[in-house]
Amino acid sequence: MILEHIELNKSRVTFGNECFEEVLRELDLAAYSACFIISQQKIWDFHGDRLAAAVKACGVEPKIRMVPDGESTKNLGVFGELLHWLADHRADRRSVVLVLGGGVVGDLSGFVAAAYMRGMDWIYVPTTLLSQQDASIGGKVAVNLPHGKNLVGHFWDPRAVIIDSSVLATLPEREVNAGYMEFLKHGMLESESLYRRVADLPVAVPDWSAHMPLLAEGLKVKVRVVREDPFEKGLRKTLNLGHTLGHAIEAYTEYKTFLHGEAVGLGLIYVTMVAKRLGGTYDWTGLEDVVRPRVPPVGCAAWDRDKMLDLTLLDKKGVSGIISWIIPFAPGKVEIVKGVDRAVLRDALDEFVEVMA
Amino acid sequence: MILEHIELNKSRVTFGNECFEEVLRELDLAAYSACFIISQQKIWDFHGDRLAAAVKACGVEPKIRMVPDGESTKNLGVFGELLHWLADHRADRRSVVLVLGGGVVGDLSGFVAAAYMRGMDWIYVPTTLLSQQDASIGGKVAVNLPHGKNLVGHFWDPRAVIIDSSVLATLPEREVNAGYMEFLKHGMLESESLYRRVADLPVAVPDWSAHMPLLAEGLKVKVRVVREDPFEKGLRKTLNLGHTLGHAIEAYTEYKTFLHGEAVGLGLIYVTMVAKRLGGTYDWTGLEDVVRPRVPPVGCAAWDRDKMLDLTLLDKKGVSGIISWIIPFAPGKVEIVKGVDRAVLRDALDEFVEVMA
Repeated sequence: MILEHIELNKSRVTFGNECFEEVLRELDLAAYSACFIISQQKIWDFHGDRLAAAVKACGVEPKIRMVPDGESTKNLGVFGELLHWLADHRADRRSVVLVLGGGVVGDLSGFVAAAYMRGMDWIYVPTTLLSQQDASIGGKVAVNLPHGKNLVGHFWDPRAVIIDSSVLATLPEREVNAGYMEFLKHGMLESESLYRRVADLPVAVPDWSAHMPLLAEGLKVKVRVVREDPFEKGLRKTLNLGHTLGHAIEAYTEYKTFLHGEAVGLGLIYVTMVAKRLGGTYDWTGLEDVVRPRVPPVGCAAWDRDKMLDLTLLDKKGVSGIISWIIPFAPGKVEIVKGVDRAVLRDALDEFVEVMA
Repeated sequence: MILEHIELNKSRVTFGNECFEEVLRELDLAAYSACFIISQQKIWDFHGDRLAAAVKACGVEPKIRMVPDGESTKNLGVFGELLHWLADHRADRRSVVLVLGGGVVGDLSGFVAAAYMRGMDWIYVPTTLLSQQDASIGGKVAVNLPHGKNLVGHFWDPRAVIIDSSVLATLPEREVNAGYMEFLKHGMLESESLYRRVADLPVAVPDWSAHMPLLAEGLKVKVRVVREDPFEKGLRKTLNLGHTLGHAIEAYTEYKTFLHGEAVGLGLIYVTMVAKRLGGTYDWTGLEDVVRPRVPPVGCAAWDRDKMLDLTLLDKKGVSGIISWIIPFAPGKVEIVKGVDRAVLRDALDEFVEVMA
């Protein structure tokens, strides 16, 4: 059942429960010259038959391709392989790419759609809470370089994003919890009310269908920001809340210990501690109790804190070495601060280690 | 000396004689975090010292990289190498790519600039008559796949295009003649007057500085078309005049016999012969005498004409197998005709072979 449509730039974002068949029908897939599905085997095993049947019900026989699991799949090599695959099957500008998967397969396949013949339509069915709250909105598509994540890509809106609660039921609990952190971030960006309602969700949600209106509220935070600043000239940077330390934690632990969302969750706690030192008076007590049960043991007592802070300097949103920190002075009162004193960052990191160790 | 500026979408196109120093000074290169020059050794040997000096005069120490010669350089592998090079030198979003070269290095480097960190500024100094008339305008950037040319890319306008007559002086005559064909095409698209003035140019132009106003008129034809239809939804397809058979000739001869412009020149003659068969009454007599002295011996008597026509069906602008032919009913009266009868195409090809053999 479709609950709601949101228009954003060239995308239509649809929320619903067991709704992707209905949405695909509305999109008139048969008008395309061909349909190319890109997914990952683990996800395909759960939902592939259903998706393929929905496409065939539109009178279209899709070509289907699986890409490997994991962040390392987002590289220029796999990007090239997918482009060759499209050309092998004579995809043209009126063909469509249909993506079933999390952020990795979405970012990668979206960049393929952006680049093939200088841009073709794509439709995205995000299958993780993380990609539903984050990667699916805003048109950022990319692959990684060894030097850093998402260093090569473009802005290319999917024609349609289908956010269907039914795909979350098969998601491992750890991935649900990691995705939750971007949702929590949207609450912190927006208001006390949204922050509280997201923070109060139980750690294990058995059925997301009842929470779709709340998920939609979270996502609309990102929608509003992206609408105002599609190319990240200013406001959109606030979506980086929690990410500067988060990315550093991921790099420090060589992407082995934490999922992206988990690292962001830790980064959210950290920036509240920085906020306090920059004059923020809001009491963020309780945030660590929201995050802690959703992440693995942090093990931060053993961190080389100077090295960790050095890693924050590699943030790709930096310009000429100056890092913009996104500081939550209170829910709904988040500011971009260009360059924060190293002593402040270090002092906040000491508190973080003390609280989270 | 700067003769004229033209604004087009996000680009400013400047015409002049010995002018690139002056334009670079106006662009305030020092405001960028770094400057990355991409060129080819053959061109660099002629103009590199001058360009590097002009950049250094802006107070900027550029990083410089050469890419190999030839169309085969426009591939995903070299694309990846250049992206790695930028990341190795910590290019960021406020860095700029400065390109000195023909269409190959322009298309390739422009796509690199489009994709690195989802898009950075680039400045293009086209060094061939072909790239001055064609690749420099309209923001099309791309690399090739084995399946076809320009199959992977984007639309990404350079911030500035600098069209400087002084770089043409060192261009081999064969390349001048090949580039001339796109110029001639612009005349055919525009008007009897422009067509005649371009057609009447001598075969060997010793000094282009006197002809810059005419070159600017030719280029403005493309500018007007691109302005009206930036993403090639309709009108822009007319710029494909001469290219459908041209591309087929290139493929048939395995890209060994003709330069792109030369093949387009032959394609221009051919479409006038198709036009006549579709009811066109304009007398294009004389066009073959404009083209013939500027191309190598055609050798078309030996062509397998059916195979040649089959190759026109692979035109990547085709949708679902239907090819749009651009038909010049008269100078300034060019139309897009979707699907032309095979018997007409064959009959016109027979005439072409008879005239050009």
